[in-house]
Amino acid sequence: MKLLQDKIMQEGIALSDQVLKVDAFLNHQVDPVLMAEIGKEFAARFRAERITKVLTIESSGIAPAVMTALELKVPVIYARKRKSLTLREDLYTEKVYSFTKQEESEVSVSKKFLFAGERILIIDDFLANGEAAFGLARIIEQAGATVSGIGIVIEKAFQPGGDKLAAAGYRVESLARIASLGEGSIVFADERQHQSV
Amino acid sequence: MKLLQDKIMQEGIALSDQVLKVDAFLNHQVDPVLMAEIGKEFAARFRAERITKVLTIESSGIAPAVMTALELKVPVIYARKRKSLTLREDLYTEKVYSFTKQEESEVSVSKKFLFAGERILIIDDFLANGEAAFGLARIIEQAGATVSGIGIVIEKAFQPGGDKLAAAGYRVESLARIASLGEGSIVFADERQHQSV
Repeated sequence: MKLLQDKIMQEGIALSDQVLKVDAFLNHQVDPVLMAEIGKEFAARFRAERITKVLTIESSGIAPAVMTALELKVPVIYARKRKSLTLREDLYTEKVYSFTKQEESEVSVSKKFLFAGERILIIDDFLANGEAAFGLARIIEQAGATVSGIGIVIEKAFQPGGDKLAAAGYRVESLARIASLGEGSIVFADERQHQSV
Repeated sequence: MKLLQDKIMQEGIALSDQVLKVDAFLNHQVDPVLMAEIGKEFAARFRAERITKVLTIESSGIAPAVMTALELKVPVIYARKRKSLTLREDLYTEKVYSFTKQEESEVSVSKKFLFAGERILIIDDFLANGEAAFGLARIIEQAGATVSGIGIVIEKAFQPGGDKLAAAGYRVESLARIASLGEGSIVFADERQHQSV
């Protein structure tokens, strides 16, 4: 998505070969017009999947997910993230390991809002190792629903998450894919080539 | 706002005389069409204030704040909330006490995104004791910016936050004001009468 790539080049900051800071428009300060365009783009790419709900994870996924859900005219759920959660039988819960924070947290979704047979679109701001996306996918599958797609704003294509999700049979669409980062340098990768599964 | 009051009556659950559960459309599952209408309503009420940025707090404030910012065509910032934060000189930080969770957390905003002279609109999902709103207001004032308004989706008018904020000279607009809650009963209050300050 050219608009997003331009924004990353203008306002993203490569802090190292691993870390891209985009807190100027995505995960602290948010550009709402860009989010609306991102929502339209995800909706266009996944409309044929007959999505019944969008699922994301707090907090940085919420803005792009809400805009996508608005375009698709379906509800959006944001999974709650906590360091450790008392297991409760009214929640679907999965453990998610964050390599960035080097800690495990638990993500949960109320059983009231996810149903068997639903077709769920996962939206998240970043994809690196795929831990969060796999956690959300397991929650969807616990509910007997289907993961109908995974929409990612920025994929670090030099980390294994995207390939692992694709190998697991999920359709992953990333609006920007980063091939490599260096101090002051950001190189984009081509879009992933999809097979419908 | 009639649309919001109707939604609260249809899908809100009064768990006690203190707790209104609205996780079906506001703070776990989110109705994006309602959020877009809420954004339009806040934008209409505050447009004359020449807002330069919207400020909210993660996570439940993000959806209504992003929609408001989209309508006003300004950036939105969500303050980060943490149990205890290493004080960092690149952040504005304030302590906020949550009566619901009975714990103190720290909210912070990067100094990169708030400037002296800006006119900031605070948006949040709930107003009860006003702790979060006062914390955000102190952050804005630390930056030398002006709190140009406070937009609240649901105000618990039986708790003191709204009156305290008004007494402190802030313009507070709440789209739904709850006069009282009981098991299975939700009673609305009239809108606050404003004096321009």
